[in-house]
Amino acid sequence: MKKIINQPENVVNEMLDGLVYAHGDLISRVNDSGVIISNDLKQGKVALISGGGSGHEPAHAGFVGQGMLGAAVCGPVFTSPTPDQVLVAIQEADKGAGVFLVIKNYSGDVMNFEMAKDLAEMEDIQVETIIVDDDIAVEDSTYTAGKRGVAGTVLVHKILGAAADQGATLIEIKELAEAIVPNIKTLGVALTGATVPEVGHPGFVLGEDELEFGVGIHGEPGYSKEKIAPSKELAKEIVGKLKGQFNWQAGEEFGLLVNGLGSTPLMEQYVFINDVKELLAADGLTVSFKKVGDYMTAIDMAGLSLTMIKLTEADWLEKLNYNVQTIAW
Amino acid sequence: MKKIINQPENVVNEMLDGLVYAHGDLISRVNDSGVIISNDLKQGKVALISGGGSGHEPAHAGFVGQGMLGAAVCGPVFTSPTPDQVLVAIQEADKGAGVFLVIKNYSGDVMNFEMAKDLAEMEDIQVETIIVDDDIAVEDSTYTAGKRGVAGTVLVHKILGAAADQGATLIEIKELAEAIVPNIKTLGVALTGATVPEVGHPGFVLGEDELEFGVGIHGEPGYSKEKIAPSKELAKEIVGKLKGQFNWQAGEEFGLLVNGLGSTPLMEQYVFINDVKELLAADGLTVSFKKVGDYMTAIDMAGLSLTMIKLTEADWLEKLNYNVQTIAW
Repeated sequence: MKKIINQPENVVNEMLDGLVYAHGDLISRVNDSGVIISNDLKQGKVALISGGGSGHEPAHAGFVGQGMLGAAVCGPVFTSPTPDQVLVAIQEADKGAGVFLVIKNYSGDVMNFEMAKDLAEMEDIQVETIIVDDDIAVEDSTYTAGKRGVAGTVLVHKILGAAADQGATLIEIKELAEAIVPNIKTLGVALTGATVPEVGHPGFVLGEDELEFGVGIHGEPGYSKEKIAPSKELAKEIVGKLKGQFNWQAGEEFGLLVNGLGSTPLMEQYVFINDVKELLAADGLTVSFKKVGDYMTAIDMAGLSLTMIKLTEADWLEKLNYNVQTIAW
Repeated sequence: MKKIINQPENVVNEMLDGLVYAHGDLISRVNDSGVIISNDLKQGKVALISGGGSGHEPAHAGFVGQGMLGAAVCGPVFTSPTPDQVLVAIQEADKGAGVFLVIKNYSGDVMNFEMAKDLAEMEDIQVETIIVDDDIAVEDSTYTAGKRGVAGTVLVHKILGAAADQGATLIEIKELAEAIVPNIKTLGVALTGATVPEVGHPGFVLGEDELEFGVGIHGEPGYSKEKIAPSKELAKEIVGKLKGQFNWQAGEEFGLLVNGLGSTPLMEQYVFINDVKELLAADGLTVSFKKVGDYMTAIDMAGLSLTMIKLTEADWLEKLNYNVQTIAW
């Protein structure tokens, strides 16, 4: 394992210290916990909270700040934060209007975030939640009942964060969340496995000429191993599968997120979106939002994912373009 | 070689098409050239131009936009753009107040950008230049007489871009450039080589337990191969070498840029800046600016660099914090 770290067991703690050192203008760390909190929490506004295991940087702490998350809960690498850590985030982020939890669909996250919700409600803090399950690759998976939550979660942060900043109530945010999540779908392809520092070797290994479609962001198995193929072919497979889910018609409006999984150069991500462009244009779609870069990674995995959001309401696009102050959006 | 590309010889062209598709609100491509130009060029303001070989994404096209570059010239991978491409950028970017070229110190870039300057002057376009040579690793190198220009170049874009946006004249920008460049120094460490798509294998190979200090952003040799060591040890070596150049005293003010070289997770970059923090604090430095992420990469190289800028004038910090509209700052 070649990593720029110290003791593997200290990696999250030192990363969070570095994060706060670098971005102390935007964020703070609550004591020595895994909770990263916005310096811009506003009285009377709903705060959004997300989180989960670490190893997906910049998610989620990179999206804390004005217009997106009020707090992020950072667990150990690829491991859910405990309910008491989530509760700390809820207590700190609540400014009287309640707290909304954006939970990626992994059994540990769902259980621990829901438990924290129960604990917070006993303290009379209003809490609502949404579970994001945008990954269309497989139904159940290693750590998941149902579909996994992956890069599309960042778009959920973005749209709901804008709504919260604009003064939406907790119930309005819950309604908006329930409207957007079914319209967000993601599929990825991995070229390598990811190496958890405390494990020291990749979670799975692909041959020198092999890739795998549908691998999860913790290295969970995908649906098909294939020979490495040109970007155009990968785009065709991924767009084809997304089309099968959306059943889109010419003229419909979408947004795109091409997300690098950790060690994929921007060069490749831009080549890929160029191939996606051709396919969507051929189907007559209107693409009014695009984002390219590393937003939800799997540590050092090579590969990328494509997220599409069907923009059925005009204000979703306005919220995707809403100005924010965060580290990484 | 595992890359998400199509024909290796088309990678830059397709990348630029993808870039413009994704960010057409900010930038445009001049015909089918390697010139990416800002949609926000203003009459009567100096335009900054930078560029060089591709493979350093997001540099330089990611820094085109209001408050930074007016244009970026994107050559083939790791290969200087031709003088006529640079000339196109100058012609397009000049809005009557002249053009300022920020050139990384590589023999090809220096020759081709200077030649373009001569050609532009024949067309009565005012052009001034600065050569950035921030890499303290080695004196001469594979493609360089004198020191190489690396990630510190992005800070030059940022400070000069703010000045240009604030209405500085060409001569004022030249004076500012000559003041800041000697105060910007960088040193990096590589864990792997970089693979140029048309070559198909890494430009150099390090052993499984080996790293190299001072490798250039095209894989040029550094000054020392060592066994892989904890982040704290890497920080000590790199900060120590920078200290030897700056000869800093307690109380002096600096800015930091931790720059990932392409496939280094943010997790590691934040652990590293946390170690840098301790060393600079022990020396009593004031660190009033910090930036962490991939800004000047070497395609898919693993490793990072640390850039320090000595902030001897108060307005340099103000210019580093100046609001910009670009893809990647």
